[in-house]
Amino acid sequence: MTRSGVNIKFVIHHFGAILLLEGIFMILDDLISLYYDPLHVTILLSSTVVTLGAGGFFFLSTKNATQSYSDRETFLIVTGGWVLISLFGTLPYLFTGYIPSFTDAFFETMSGFTTTGASILNNIEGLSKGVLFWRSETHWIGGIGIIVIFITIFNFISNNNVHQLFSSEFSNVTGQKLFPKVIQVTKVLLIIYVSFTVLETYLLMQGGMNFFDSVCHSFGTIATGGFSTKNNSIEGFSPYIQYVIMFFMMLSGANFNLYIALFSKRKNIFKDEELRLYLFFIFLIGSIITLILFFKMHYDFEYSFRTAFFQVISIITATGFTSTDYLQWPEYAWILLIFLMFIGASSSSTGGGIKVIRVLIAGKYIKNLFKKASHPNLVSVIKYNGKPIPSQVIRRVLAFIVLYLLIAIGSAFLLMVDHVSATTSFGSVLTCMGGVGPGLELTGPASNFHALPDFSKWVLAFDMLVGRLEIFSVLVIFVPDFWRS
Amino acid sequence: MTRSGVNIKFVIHHFGAILLLEGIFMILDDLISLYYDPLHVTILLSSTVVTLGAGGFFFLSTKNATQSYSDRETFLIVTGGWVLISLFGTLPYLFTGYIPSFTDAFFETMSGFTTTGASILNNIEGLSKGVLFWRSETHWIGGIGIIVIFITIFNFISNNNVHQLFSSEFSNVTGQKLFPKVIQVTKVLLIIYVSFTVLETYLLMQGGMNFFDSVCHSFGTIATGGFSTKNNSIEGFSPYIQYVIMFFMMLSGANFNLYIALFSKRKNIFKDEELRLYLFFIFLIGSIITLILFFKMHYDFEYSFRTAFFQVISIITATGFTSTDYLQWPEYAWILLIFLMFIGASSSSTGGGIKVIRVLIAGKYIKNLFKKASHPNLVSVIKYNGKPIPSQVIRRVLAFIVLYLLIAIGSAFLLMVDHVSATTSFGSVLTCMGGVGPGLELTGPASNFHALPDFSKWVLAFDMLVGRLEIFSVLVIFVPDFWRS
Repeated sequence: MTRSGVNIKFVIHHFGAILLLEGIFMILDDLISLYYDPLHVTILLSSTVVTLGAGGFFFLSTKNATQSYSDRETFLIVTGGWVLISLFGTLPYLFTGYIPSFTDAFFETMSGFTTTGASILNNIEGLSKGVLFWRSETHWIGGIGIIVIFITIFNFISNNNVHQLFSSEFSNVTGQKLFPKVIQVTKVLLIIYVSFTVLETYLLMQGGMNFFDSVCHSFGTIATGGFSTKNNSIEGFSPYIQYVIMFFMMLSGANFNLYIALFSKRKNIFKDEELRLYLFFIFLIGSIITLILFFKMHYDFEYSFRTAFFQVISIITATGFTSTDYLQWPEYAWILLIFLMFIGASSSSTGGGIKVIRVLIAGKYIKNLFKKASHPNLVSVIKYNGKPIPSQVIRRVLAFIVLYLLIAIGSAFLLMVDHVSATTSFGSVLTCMGGVGPGLELTGPASNFHALPDFSKWVLAFDMLVGRLEIFSVLVIFVPDFWRS
Repeated sequence: MTRSGVNIKFVIHHFGAILLLEGIFMILDDLISLYYDPLHVTILLSSTVVTLGAGGFFFLSTKNATQSYSDRETFLIVTGGWVLISLFGTLPYLFTGYIPSFTDAFFETMSGFTTTGASILNNIEGLSKGVLFWRSETHWIGGIGIIVIFITIFNFISNNNVHQLFSSEFSNVTGQKLFPKVIQVTKVLLIIYVSFTVLETYLLMQGGMNFFDSVCHSFGTIATGGFSTKNNSIEGFSPYIQYVIMFFMMLSGANFNLYIALFSKRKNIFKDEELRLYLFFIFLIGSIITLILFFKMHYDFEYSFRTAFFQVISIITATGFTSTDYLQWPEYAWILLIFLMFIGASSSSTGGGIKVIRVLIAGKYIKNLFKKASHPNLVSVIKYNGKPIPSQVIRRVLAFIVLYLLIAIGSAFLLMVDHVSATTSFGSVLTCMGGVGPGLELTGPASNFHALPDFSKWVLAFDMLVGRLEIFSVLVIFVPDFWRS
């Protein structure tokens, strides 16, 4: 315990456990390397050893930590944990020399773990298989949330506090205690996550993709990440493969709790208001862009449909795979994609953005305000899925949106100070906060984040983390009150 | 009464009265014309006659209207009234042929009445004195709010409903019943408004500006409008004149109720939290830009100070006079001005934007959220000027900000569909919603809105109205529920 009342030893103990877990995952890419390019394996093995060593040291040196902790310790474990795995996650890039700059390596790793998918690599296909696999693995680990895996395997944080941890990584907007047994549910989530990954890998292989690429793309899809093993992302693959990826992106952008409800209680999940709005956005914007491509760009209909919906699904789910350079479309078509970057995917999914449920709640509240303005005596309760929404939930949702936009504007300002153009700045910030991947202009689908100055890359890495952990868990640590007892 | 339950006759009766009042104001520019360019007077007189005639017809043909009305009628009177005076206000431009296009004339008039100050005129100095005076007059009328003048002179809307009208034009964010006698207060407001105008005119004349220009610039300042009689706005005037205008812009961007408190109760107004934050924003951003101009642009210090603070005050108060082309500054300097366009002036001022008080309340609430996150047992009440803020006020404030941003994004999208570039679109929308005047790129200080396509001009005219009437009064009319009884 320090003077501030934060149990630092307890926090460091958990940092140790997180790093140990990361090291275990690193063994996978050592094995891949052993199979595909054995000459590389010792270099990769050394990052594994360093990570396991650091984790073991933290873990063992603090094993006498007292078990007293509050929300503050959990905030520190989550946010600090994400920074820490990103720091150690740079080692495979740095040791192999594929990414010599520490800033670039940190950007790439944070982009991986936060499932953003924004890259600084000019030649992805030049990487060795082991490193490529690690790159895709960061998505897969970050998608489910290292904490969730952690809970499932170690089982050693009390049920009570798990709730706080869980909410930080798996947005639970309405704040209802969904699960009497969080640990139980977490295990089911992990099973669904793994099943989707296996199923997509199988279907991609059916389309002629090799095993290695299939696994990597499945990792990128199910985590809504977006790192591909190819320089031009999904553009070179067959229509069948594009449709498979579209389908699994859509699945991964929906609320995972719905799948639990579907399998365990045989609920009709299509009555869920968030799911309906999520599908509606995809249908609406997808259709508009299909028509634009068909009538304005004169593509054939199937291609227009596939390309429009691929980009729409990829961006609303915050995946960020691309099957075309959307900046070649008319400006008013790609600005619709920017709108989708704001909205983002469903709550309790691995996607980013403001999240459909918040858009829904804010929209209902505003609609109600207007109703009341013209009919002041009207008594109307704002409901979500049939249940009244508590008033503090509405306020928190609105505050979240305001804060989200403020951070976006503030970050774009910092990029501009760093001599990045206005369009590139806003595009990059929105895509990183939303966890999408490709941005506009200099950071569009046809290029990458390599050319940005270092300071801007750090700002964007921070934006990725803020977006992934839904703002509060990160910013709260910077509020002086946090450190007062 | 119609089937919808809206008392249309009552609404039209008030439209008549509003037009009659506009016609009376038009007589002023007929007199100016008679003095400066007598050949023009018959043309201007004909617009006056048409306006008075239409007003008289509406007023007299509905004088048997029942006096039963609710908030819905007042929304229609306010919003419809603003559209109507803008329609008839185009006549001096159209009849004289200075602005041959109806779209352009409507844009210019709406820009005048909403005190935006965005212009489509390439050669302002080519206008006759009578028309120039009408242009500045639209600012002055729109600044105090035609309804406020209306109440003062006609005295014939019941005290109860005046409150609703008053709130639409003079933002009253916290919703407290400030005034036991609204009509009384309105009269005092009008006296302050006139006094400031007279005082500024006098001080400008002391600096060598002629009477005509002094009156027009005072109209533009006190109303936080921004129409100048010169092509290059305030740039050509002496430092003394620039300082005088800066001072009165600052006065006009503060909450006018503070002046009442100062004069009537001898209150220490510097304890007012909104005023403090408003002055803080000016001081902070003004200082930063002063340093940028001094160190990066190598201007002398007095010029850096004056130019930085002139632009900052002009934009936060939503006036829009310019003393330099700020687009020549580094990008990160003018992006700070964009930030000020969002924030806007104080509540119960004639300025635009989101308003300082909303920024303050949203900020306090968010700060509180963070405090509670790390200290869940903390009981803290959010206060404004020592009084707790009701929770529905916080929600409304947050919803307002969200809606404001959504309308901005939506409008910019429409401009882009109309083939306007992204930067010009966002700059134009923000400056029009905020009631500022100059935007970015094509609509920056060195140019004007003339080159935009017609459809975009209509979107921007709508944005000006939405910004001036603080969203709700305008949008509520488009909600189908409004027309249901």
